[in-house]
Amino acid sequence: MDIPVLKGTRDYLPNEQIIREKIVGILIDKFKKYGFKPMETAILEYYSVLASKYAGGEEILKETYKLTDQGGRQLGLRYELTIKLAKVIGLNPMIRFPFKRYEIGKVFRDGPVKTGRLREFTQCDVDVVGVKSMAADAEFIAMTFDIFKEIGLDVKVLVNNRKLLNGIMEYVEIPEDKRISTILSLDKLDKIGKDGVIEELRESGISESQIDKLFQVIEGAAGSTQEKIAYFENIITNEIGKEGLQELKDFFSYCSAYEVPEDDVIFQPSLARGLAYYTGTMWEVYLKDGTIKSSVAAGGRWDEMIKNFLQSKLDYPAVGMTFGLDVIYEALKQKDFEGFIGKKDKIPMVLIIPINTLTESLTIAKKLRDAGISTDVIVEKKLKRALEFADKEGIPYVIIVGKAELEKNVVKIRDMQAQQETEMPLEKVIKILKG
Amino acid sequence: MDIPVLKGTRDYLPNEQIIREKIVGILIDKFKKYGFKPMETAILEYYSVLASKYAGGEEILKETYKLTDQGGRQLGLRYELTIKLAKVIGLNPMIRFPFKRYEIGKVFRDGPVKTGRLREFTQCDVDVVGVKSMAADAEFIAMTFDIFKEIGLDVKVLVNNRKLLNGIMEYVEIPEDKRISTILSLDKLDKIGKDGVIEELRESGISESQIDKLFQVIEGAAGSTQEKIAYFENIITNEIGKEGLQELKDFFSYCSAYEVPEDDVIFQPSLARGLAYYTGTMWEVYLKDGTIKSSVAAGGRWDEMIKNFLQSKLDYPAVGMTFGLDVIYEALKQKDFEGFIGKKDKIPMVLIIPINTLTESLTIAKKLRDAGISTDVIVEKKLKRALEFADKEGIPYVIIVGKAELEKNVVKIRDMQAQQETEMPLEKVIKILKG
Repeated sequence: MDIPVLKGTRDYLPNEQIIREKIVGILIDKFKKYGFKPMETAILEYYSVLASKYAGGEEILKETYKLTDQGGRQLGLRYELTIKLAKVIGLNPMIRFPFKRYEIGKVFRDGPVKTGRLREFTQCDVDVVGVKSMAADAEFIAMTFDIFKEIGLDVKVLVNNRKLLNGIMEYVEIPEDKRISTILSLDKLDKIGKDGVIEELRESGISESQIDKLFQVIEGAAGSTQEKIAYFENIITNEIGKEGLQELKDFFSYCSAYEVPEDDVIFQPSLARGLAYYTGTMWEVYLKDGTIKSSVAAGGRWDEMIKNFLQSKLDYPAVGMTFGLDVIYEALKQKDFEGFIGKKDKIPMVLIIPINTLTESLTIAKKLRDAGISTDVIVEKKLKRALEFADKEGIPYVIIVGKAELEKNVVKIRDMQAQQETEMPLEKVIKILKG
Repeated sequence: MDIPVLKGTRDYLPNEQIIREKIVGILIDKFKKYGFKPMETAILEYYSVLASKYAGGEEILKETYKLTDQGGRQLGLRYELTIKLAKVIGLNPMIRFPFKRYEIGKVFRDGPVKTGRLREFTQCDVDVVGVKSMAADAEFIAMTFDIFKEIGLDVKVLVNNRKLLNGIMEYVEIPEDKRISTILSLDKLDKIGKDGVIEELRESGISESQIDKLFQVIEGAAGSTQEKIAYFENIITNEIGKEGLQELKDFFSYCSAYEVPEDDVIFQPSLARGLAYYTGTMWEVYLKDGTIKSSVAAGGRWDEMIKNFLQSKLDYPAVGMTFGLDVIYEALKQKDFEGFIGKKDKIPMVLIIPINTLTESLTIAKKLRDAGISTDVIVEKKLKRALEFADKEGIPYVIIVGKAELEKNVVKIRDMQAQQETEMPLEKVIKILKG
């Protein structure tokens, strides 16, 4: 049969999935340590909900999978998880704030497929709703370092504040209706260079003197975080800019309280992110060694979205971030999976090869599993083929069970890497493998 | 805003999802212990793959969600996970057998919504491909008891063999084209009673003498498993029936080697399951106390499906089972969640309430988290409101951090259930909570 493969979707075989599950395990473990609780929302959704203008607008709608069910309902597959969080909050008035949740789930985008851009992929989102204090924003930064330390990747975080950016726009006198496009152009400094940004700004009708002034302000910021903030405090004296600067000061002071590595949280005044719903702090997490160019995680504050979506009079300040499972996987791949996946993570850790001792071998398997050791019994392969299988599958230990060994009350254990065999009682094997 | 809720889909809030995640965690842990590796397949699939006649036929197609993407491709959402396993095996000739994988993922059914029947739900599948020996079938039974013991539910397993059923059909001389419907009717004994089954058999054109003979054979089986098998060995002497009986004998002997509780694995000659692709052993797992009527897990051997699907000349014998996440959740709900979710599973385990000590409290939170204790800091609520919040959220411990305590190098810890407060150094708190 000729099996068609759907472009933009992927199946993950065990060799990859073991690593992805370990990454997800670390994420969940840390999310919980920081007080975030799990939530799971449905993938199928009314198209009308996904089409809400506050959910992300035109850009998102263009790439939303649409379908009609047998009852004639217009449905869509969720594009991201934030709209689902907003919906859950709207539907559950008994939720107590602050509400801290994580959700790890599939999202779908009916768009063009590029390298690293799939049509079906997993997002790992973590958000808190109901806290205005910058202590919440700083908590995400502390968690970020905690997570990547555990994963074994060195990262740095670039940070900015949307209110400060608005303050700069006001100071440079960019017209209201051109502020978003100006900020978006500025965000491309790393990608298209200064000349590219200037070209874009000219095309959108920003005057030469405004462009000069804008770069003067942005490029004038130098030195330590404190020095950059002090520099802006001298220049940006409008209300919104001052608010942004105060938020940045609070944010960095709480980061210190969390003992976040100071040199690795970098205030970058040109950083903007996708502007749709960010309102305050914004950050992007990059590998320090630059082996992967795109960010491995990113987040920010989005104080207005839920209120707008629910058309509520209540405020729902919110901060959150997304961890990119696939990009973290790629980053680890470029390093060293062996360091990440130890012998104990291998499945199975032990392969039992019965030599005409199947029944007894099943009982031995039970004892190993009861001791928490992942164990398999190979029932239809002879010794040589079974050893080859263990070798190719990367199984760390093989236990050979023959009649002679059973009579002596021992088993033969083979360390596949060291290629060494020893006879010993099963109890001793268990003790060693549990380590 | 009036938020529409899509019937047949569900969002799981933290109070439910913490329990579901714990169940899934136990499943994954045990799957690994038994040597099953994780796999993840795409939800979006070409409709033509899902429509393969070997994937389950008409019944499945009727309820498969269909959609067309922007490239005009005819797609569907996966209906179950087995067809995806077959596809992965077809696409990856480097896979070594036996291949043991588990997959936990969403499946979708565009059918009528009933109690306990959703349009979007999670399946927990675990299968082995490439083993003919009944040792594989017995391993699933051992794993089943191991899993439900850990979850804290008492279960029994009903077992039968499809080949034996075919042998009985042959013995009773049911015409070939009426065997499947006869077996399906027989399977309803528990649901519609003997009279109901007889009525169905009559309607499908089975003669009175055949019906009599059928019940005579089935009802004649009594006593212990060994006695039932011996009984059938006397009567069913055709090839297929003898093969089934030998498989049952092997199966029960391997179950013994795994020290499975003998009285809780019950040979039930009328059990049939959905017949589409089962070829040998079949089993269903029920709560012993009967508080939930439907099975909480079920499985069987399906030796032909992959070969047929791939139109391959190779054999792909396979055994597997599904655990019902939602029904296990319901079963636990009827008992006692408190016994299942301990203090250490609570998120957060500790809530820190700063009394004008936010910065210092963040540093204390860091220390607790570093010690592996899930911790939250409530930053915008005064003491009384914060204690109410902790109480309502069921947070086990509160740490109150005031200036006076900091000066004395202690914190105030409150056991919310016991309503007791004690002052002690943070190090001691950590020691107690890690306990």
